[in-house]
Amino acid sequence: MGRWEPGTRERLHSAALRLFAENGYEQTTAADIAAAVGLTERTFFRHYPDKREVLFGSDELLSELIARGVREAPEGTSPLDLAASGVLAAAEFFDDERRSTARIRRQIIDRNPALLERERAKYAQFADAAHRALLDRGVHEPAATLAAESAMVAFRTTVSQWLREDETRSWREIAAEMLGSLRQISEVPTSAG
Amino acid sequence: MGRWEPGTRERLHSAALRLFAENGYEQTTAADIAAAVGLTERTFFRHYPDKREVLFGSDELLSELIARGVREAPEGTSPLDLAASGVLAAAEFFDDERRSTARIRRQIIDRNPALLERERAKYAQFADAAHRALLDRGVHEPAATLAAESAMVAFRTTVSQWLREDETRSWREIAAEMLGSLRQISEVPTSAG
Repeated sequence: MGRWEPGTRERLHSAALRLFAENGYEQTTAADIAAAVGLTERTFFRHYPDKREVLFGSDELLSELIARGVREAPEGTSPLDLAASGVLAAAEFFDDERRSTARIRRQIIDRNPALLERERAKYAQFADAAHRALLDRGVHEPAATLAAESAMVAFRTTVSQWLREDETRSWREIAAEMLGSLRQISEVPTSAG
Repeated sequence: MGRWEPGTRERLHSAALRLFAENGYEQTTAADIAAAVGLTERTFFRHYPDKREVLFGSDELLSELIARGVREAPEGTSPLDLAASGVLAAAEFFDDERRSTARIRRQIIDRNPALLERERAKYAQFADAAHRALLDRGVHEPAATLAAESAMVAFRTTVSQWLREDETRSWREIAAEMLGSLRQISEVPTSAG
């Protein structure tokens, strides 16, 4: 029964991150990950198509959260506010319990150019999700593209800040501040500098 | 004398684009490109470190133009206006004579995932150039990052539009419009839709 018990996917995920961090991503096989939690490679592949997806398997959910945030934003707001609503909706994903795991994941990805490339592709998918949702909300081009991509700049910057070792604020708090800064880049600073 | 005559680099560039388009990027060697203009492979490597750099060798210049545009922008403007000045300065590079060659280059890159990845890295360098110049202009974080990256969204969108087969407007005209749209994404649209 073990291989179908609830939480198998999560246990594989934890073991994979630990092994990637300790032994290196390239050096760790799907069989190693499965063995670390007393399962077979075959069982691993029931839960993940390959070891890379252990790192990126949650990104579908993130695209959905972003799109839903745009769809559920109030009417009568600007294209950027609609896109910002998508960014803020991602807070549901980036809860504080996830932060320490996310920091380990970050280090694993930073060490591997192929994983960095995979991550860039995933970010492009988030931008696409926001973009499609903006078009559905009736935003025209090029505003839909510009708002989706600009909001994704704030999204990426928020993720980087949230992962910093010295950062304790919640994802939502950082995102709100970053989106506020994004709205202000068209304003001439009043203080020196 | 042939191999040192002025324009050798340009002739190699033209021959390379033609061969990449006709025979495929992967199938074309540096020796093929050199032979097409009556030169040796050795001469090719005096002008380009590898065949990929035929496609990306002008990007240093583009980074410099963007940075200079930011540095030379008038004082008392917003972070986004400073970054926008960098985008507009790139118009010097994207002149109309370059457009047909740039369209061929576009098709070659679009067909090759490794070239697309290289292009993404180059775009990151443009953003870095704009970002550093914004910091030099006294813009604080996160405004410097957000303005540089947002301006680069307008830059990429401008390049795409400029390369469209049905587009006849100049790069500067398209860029000015795109930057105008970027400034308006925080505004609530007044007309329907």
